[in-house]
Amino acid sequence: MQAKHAPGGRVDLAAVDAQWRAANYLAAGQLYLDGDPLLRQPLRPDDLKPRVVGHWGTVPGLTLVYSHFNRIICERDLDVVFVAGPGHGGPALLAHTFLEGSLGERDPSMPRDEAGMQRLFQAFSTPGGIPSHAAPNVPGSINEGGELGYSLAHACGAVFDAPDALAVCVVGDGEAETGPLAASWHSTSFLDPVVDGAVLPVLHLNGYKIAGPTVLARMDPADLRALLRGYGYEPVEVAGAAPEMVHADLAAALDGCVDRIDAIQSSARAGETPDGRLRWPMIVLRTPKGWTGPSLVDGTPIEGTFRAHQVPLAVSREATGHLTELEDWLRSYRPQELFDADGRPTKSVLRYMPDGDRRMGANPRANAGGVRRDLDLPDPQEAAVPESEIQEARQGSSGRLCECSPTAALGRYLRTVIERNPDTFRLFSPDEADSNKLSAVFETTDRVWRSGSTDPLGHGVHDENLGPHGRVMEVLSEHLCEGWLEGYLLTGRHGMLATYEAFAHVVDSMVGQYAKWLEGARAIDWRQPPASLNLLLTSHAWRQDHNGFSHQDPGFIDLVMNKKNDLVRVLFPPDANALLAVADEALSSVGRMNVIVAGKHPSPVYRTLGEAREHCARGMSIWPEEGTEDGAQQPDVVLACAGEVPTAETVAAARLLSQHVPHLQVRVVNVVDLLRMQTPEQEPRGLSDDEFDALFARDSPVIFAYHGYPSAVHRLTYRRACHANLHVHGYLEEGTTTTPFDMLMLNGMDRYSLALDALARARHAAGDAGPDAAGEFARARAAAKEYTRSHGADAPDLTRMPPRR
Amino acid sequence: MQAKHAPGGRVDLAAVDAQWRAANYLAAGQLYLDGDPLLRQPLRPDDLKPRVVGHWGTVPGLTLVYSHFNRIICERDLDVVFVAGPGHGGPALLAHTFLEGSLGERDPSMPRDEAGMQRLFQAFSTPGGIPSHAAPNVPGSINEGGELGYSLAHACGAVFDAPDALAVCVVGDGEAETGPLAASWHSTSFLDPVVDGAVLPVLHLNGYKIAGPTVLARMDPADLRALLRGYGYEPVEVAGAAPEMVHADLAAALDGCVDRIDAIQSSARAGETPDGRLRWPMIVLRTPKGWTGPSLVDGTPIEGTFRAHQVPLAVSREATGHLTELEDWLRSYRPQELFDADGRPTKSVLRYMPDGDRRMGANPRANAGGVRRDLDLPDPQEAAVPESEIQEARQGSSGRLCECSPTAALGRYLRTVIERNPDTFRLFSPDEADSNKLSAVFETTDRVWRSGSTDPLGHGVHDENLGPHGRVMEVLSEHLCEGWLEGYLLTGRHGMLATYEAFAHVVDSMVGQYAKWLEGARAIDWRQPPASLNLLLTSHAWRQDHNGFSHQDPGFIDLVMNKKNDLVRVLFPPDANALLAVADEALSSVGRMNVIVAGKHPSPVYRTLGEAREHCARGMSIWPEEGTEDGAQQPDVVLACAGEVPTAETVAAARLLSQHVPHLQVRVVNVVDLLRMQTPEQEPRGLSDDEFDALFARDSPVIFAYHGYPSAVHRLTYRRACHANLHVHGYLEEGTTTTPFDMLMLNGMDRYSLALDALARARHAAGDAGPDAAGEFARARAAAKEYTRSHGADAPDLTRMPPRR
Repeated sequence: MQAKHAPGGRVDLAAVDAQWRAANYLAAGQLYLDGDPLLRQPLRPDDLKPRVVGHWGTVPGLTLVYSHFNRIICERDLDVVFVAGPGHGGPALLAHTFLEGSLGERDPSMPRDEAGMQRLFQAFSTPGGIPSHAAPNVPGSINEGGELGYSLAHACGAVFDAPDALAVCVVGDGEAETGPLAASWHSTSFLDPVVDGAVLPVLHLNGYKIAGPTVLARMDPADLRALLRGYGYEPVEVAGAAPEMVHADLAAALDGCVDRIDAIQSSARAGETPDGRLRWPMIVLRTPKGWTGPSLVDGTPIEGTFRAHQVPLAVSREATGHLTELEDWLRSYRPQELFDADGRPTKSVLRYMPDGDRRMGANPRANAGGVRRDLDLPDPQEAAVPESEIQEARQGSSGRLCECSPTAALGRYLRTVIERNPDTFRLFSPDEADSNKLSAVFETTDRVWRSGSTDPLGHGVHDENLGPHGRVMEVLSEHLCEGWLEGYLLTGRHGMLATYEAFAHVVDSMVGQYAKWLEGARAIDWRQPPASLNLLLTSHAWRQDHNGFSHQDPGFIDLVMNKKNDLVRVLFPPDANALLAVADEALSSVGRMNVIVAGKHPSPVYRTLGEAREHCARGMSIWPEEGTEDGAQQPDVVLACAGEVPTAETVAAARLLSQHVPHLQVRVVNVVDLLRMQTPEQEPRGLSDDEFDALFARDSPVIFAYHGYPSAVHRLTYRRACHANLHVHGYLEEGTTTTPFDMLMLNGMDRYSLALDALARARHAAGDAGPDAAGEFARARAAAKEYTRSHGADAPDLTRMPPRR
Repeated sequence: MQAKHAPGGRVDLAAVDAQWRAANYLAAGQLYLDGDPLLRQPLRPDDLKPRVVGHWGTVPGLTLVYSHFNRIICERDLDVVFVAGPGHGGPALLAHTFLEGSLGERDPSMPRDEAGMQRLFQAFSTPGGIPSHAAPNVPGSINEGGELGYSLAHACGAVFDAPDALAVCVVGDGEAETGPLAASWHSTSFLDPVVDGAVLPVLHLNGYKIAGPTVLARMDPADLRALLRGYGYEPVEVAGAAPEMVHADLAAALDGCVDRIDAIQSSARAGETPDGRLRWPMIVLRTPKGWTGPSLVDGTPIEGTFRAHQVPLAVSREATGHLTELEDWLRSYRPQELFDADGRPTKSVLRYMPDGDRRMGANPRANAGGVRRDLDLPDPQEAAVPESEIQEARQGSSGRLCECSPTAALGRYLRTVIERNPDTFRLFSPDEADSNKLSAVFETTDRVWRSGSTDPLGHGVHDENLGPHGRVMEVLSEHLCEGWLEGYLLTGRHGMLATYEAFAHVVDSMVGQYAKWLEGARAIDWRQPPASLNLLLTSHAWRQDHNGFSHQDPGFIDLVMNKKNDLVRVLFPPDANALLAVADEALSSVGRMNVIVAGKHPSPVYRTLGEAREHCARGMSIWPEEGTEDGAQQPDVVLACAGEVPTAETVAAARLLSQHVPHLQVRVVNVVDLLRMQTPEQEPRGLSDDEFDALFARDSPVIFAYHGYPSAVHRLTYRRACHANLHVHGYLEEGTTTTPFDMLMLNGMDRYSLALDALARARHAAGDAGPDAAGEFARARAAAKEYTRSHGADAPDLTRMPPRR
């Protein structure tokens, strides 16, 4: 970051104050005013909005920081992304983007004049208008802030691999009580002064939440300083309720912080090693909640109390009791000094207004799609199980299949992705890249680690693949991983989060909110889609051999299924090659969330990469080589499956049936792209009824082995002709620390249970062979159970695929 | 807490060490040994377990703290709950509970002798045996630790209102990176030295996670001290790799901490005011990961590195290469000194072994049901909308209904619950008790607040209903609220968590894990059920007038529906009286999770409390007064509903139909207890098919207005006869900042849309009246939309219930 100090450089605080007052006026106007936005006439009830709603409390703090940073940007020509933690401060950002003109450029109905101002006031929090938070419609925003806790992680993600960027992140003291935010302070341990940009946190302590005080505001200030120093910052404190004093102190504090950031980066980039821990600066800002708003109303203090949280004055067209107080408040900003006769900001307001892309509302980084470059993706073939191996296995008479760990293959692919895209792709993982068998990435890169390497035990330090410029971000916090990734994507880069399947639930809420952001952004024509959010769920429910019940939960899929279907893909690649096919497509997609479920243990490979690509592109298809139907009629039974473990058991069941009930006409269908099981009315990519019936048959029993909770398949298929014949085996919430085959038996998804169900459902077609084979399967299942009990391990033949007939 | 120092009192560190070695031996034995548990013979491959799985790395730290605390309990007769954050340390707790005999008392197959020891070794992580974590089968455990992050919140919850209790909470440095744990350090701001017990956190820095270093272990030690002081603690540091030194230091440090806790409590209980911030002691313990395990294997360091995370030696019956190293390691504990010829712990091991209930594995607090007393619940009538008002409204000709805010009524009820149960009930809420209209509780109690009240701005402090001994726990962290509540329930008390519906997703993972705990505990005969976990989801999706899309998500229900049905209730009381009926039942229930969805805005009251109780007990019933069927035949259409807003729109739709299509035979069905829509095979409490068909009819179209995502109703009812005729209106992920009626229209759940759908589905029955009325409804809907657009508010008549015919 090049600092270009203003020549001569005495700060014109009056101009900063004018901009602040203008923004505050515009924010208050959004809450209350419908007509006469410049208050040319005495305020009348009819000038009020029909529905006065919104939040004031946090606004003046946000406008204060924004105004001051505009001054710094003008003086130093900085590239700044503004992240507003307190989402309730939507009016503050709308006010500033109105003033800087970025709002009017994005939404031509809101030009920088009186008509635009009136339109802004009318549209705010109005049906069909603009939402109340820092939603995607707000230029420059990458953090909605409705669900608190993610601002600082987003800010960090925004500056990874962006050495010229500075993210100014206002953290409210409400938000600061959340877990994700409390962990996010540690993010600086992962920020590198050479390859990354900087984050300047502004902890804004206005003292109150909705109804009570905040923990951080009421701490002993010495304790708070200790806490923030402990987190690795050098806090600079600014406090006050007198604007002139606060302006002066804040200007000096911010200049000092930016100088310090500049010094840290310059020194690191010159190759100097810092003495001791690198300590980034930050601001602790204490100003009253609802500052400059009504001080006392009917004798009750409002400004500086929790009562300023929402609209500080209860006044409406119907209840005009406080109309005078409202008018006095609005006029206290002296709008006639701030806007000219046409409603345009005056020179003083614009004195410190950055130009073009330097305006925080116009920073191209904050519109991912505008700056995103496609990844240079390698041919997945180099990581795939080769065709020759697969063909060789096919030609053998044993029916043996190749085996490969799906995630190990993905690791090899990602290694090359990282090599080819050294500054636009990162892999995020809660300490699990090795555990999830993605270790091949460490052949080319490191885990990011910038903390000092103290060794208080004197025991020696034993690290592998650790370094400041790695592409793998590991921290035992799904929240941090997800938040960093979101910030990284929303500023135009690419990534993947790999996590234990069960613990994806930790970020249910974040992922849900991100889906809302994506959906909101789709409706905004100037927002270009970011690269897709790629979530790899691995170390899944079916293989928790040394963990247990707490690690067995496939329900994250159900959560994302509630989002609009065209936003989400839920993908079950059945083998290593299919995982590569799916990952390749996912990494080249935009604007979506791809949830990919894949295991890490060696498992059968059914398809060459080319075949896998075709299968995955169709979403689901019949696997004729594993079925026994002759095609002359409907099959006696359809064995369908989704997920790598259910697929292996289904194929094994089909083979058992082919051996023992050779006359049974069995079809095997494998599903990769789960949501396409829906009808086109439910999901535009859904299979037509004809296509669906051609796969699943209309009248044959369907035994569906599904990776997750069975209800998911029912909710996707209840409109299909075969639904009454559909019998889903899946995870029944039966789990513990046990062997893989025992887990299958506990949940009725083992090959014998599937074959038995298929036989029972196809009873007539199975004919005489039925009962005998059923007895045999039942005995084999009982023997497997007994073996597991007595040996504490699975019988060796159960880890292999049985031969075909 | 009374300190009873040992007379004379030199600590016998050799005895502490003996106990520690015994526990380590037993833990390692659980990982590896099947036969010859006392190593009477040279170790043979056949003595190994058939499946060697488990985690060693964290074990020696846990056993160290447990052994030392046993000494302190013996000397001071303390009432201690041991909370093990690192769940992977299951073997440590099993080892200690074996040594103290609490395991054998709970599970008679594991007596304190050689046979019991062998049984323990064999059962650990074995199919049909005991899980690998600190699961419910572990005596004294209240924290499974499989999903990391919740130990400290659980520990705090365990000591609220338990002035004699001390929770010793070991926090691993992996866990410490999570968001929930990072926020949990602030819990001490909410712990009162008078009415609550104390928590002694032991931050165990063994330096590594699965594959990399930990943030807290590698911080500059001065920064770490600052961080912990900032959180409000006085950290006492113990570090080393030489057992004798660590024993001596830790013994002194723990004695100092317990003395300090005693001093804080004695002083506060004597009414003295502390100088400055109350600063609780804590331990920072640095010992090597996998301490005392194999140091080097094949030249690679194991002890003190991440490689000690799981089993430190790869040795099995098949791969015996490291058998000698294993034997050397196991014998390094000198088992012959620790166990007598019968396998009983020797005198030295038992020197510091507490008796009876003082054993941490036998502490009655950790078995909720053993100490739980039922709440003294008031008659909800005193908070209900009186029968007289309801009857008066019924007798009027306008069809007007009384109105009442459901949560306001609940607040009045909870006020009395709190008055009657001053030390066994708490209300937990992320800063929202007022926002959620539960304010009546503040007539009798306070928000808990123990932080100092600094006023750095000199602006004055404006607090309401704040005090150290309140019953309302407010902090802007759903994680803390949920974690505290879980700890409180698991130690025998009662509570409720009230949250914005959308933000319940923040604790999806915690609630899912708690469900797993409850389910696991059901299978353990000595575990008595705790009071139910009561979650009130309010400020729901349909009334986010001044917030927006981020606050609109009814998907939490879908998450809990994945849990075993008999563990969960999902309850949609349609009005204030029904909410009271439901809450009364929920607060007297045990062993479940009750998810109650209720609004805070005034809404119609349909039923007297008595009628509401009966309706809620049935789970769902026909509301004859709102239908128009004559009973002679099947209705032309069934209007069903679940949720207070869908119910109001359904009743309005029925009334519109009765006015405009008087010949149409309409039935209104209201559903409270959602999961009972399932068949008895799916959910034991489900309605039989006959009962279900009697409500919903078999062949009539059913228009179902549902509070959440429509797929939930489909997944519950796909087996029912009427399912093909079932048309669900619900939340379609269409949201923004807008008016209540506009939200309904956006999602097709407004009265007009319901009436139109009913007419269309009952087309034939509607006869000639159909088309006309449809036109009228469509025009009314268009007019409503237009009114909202032009006025920015809902038309006044839409906030009222239309009259009946």
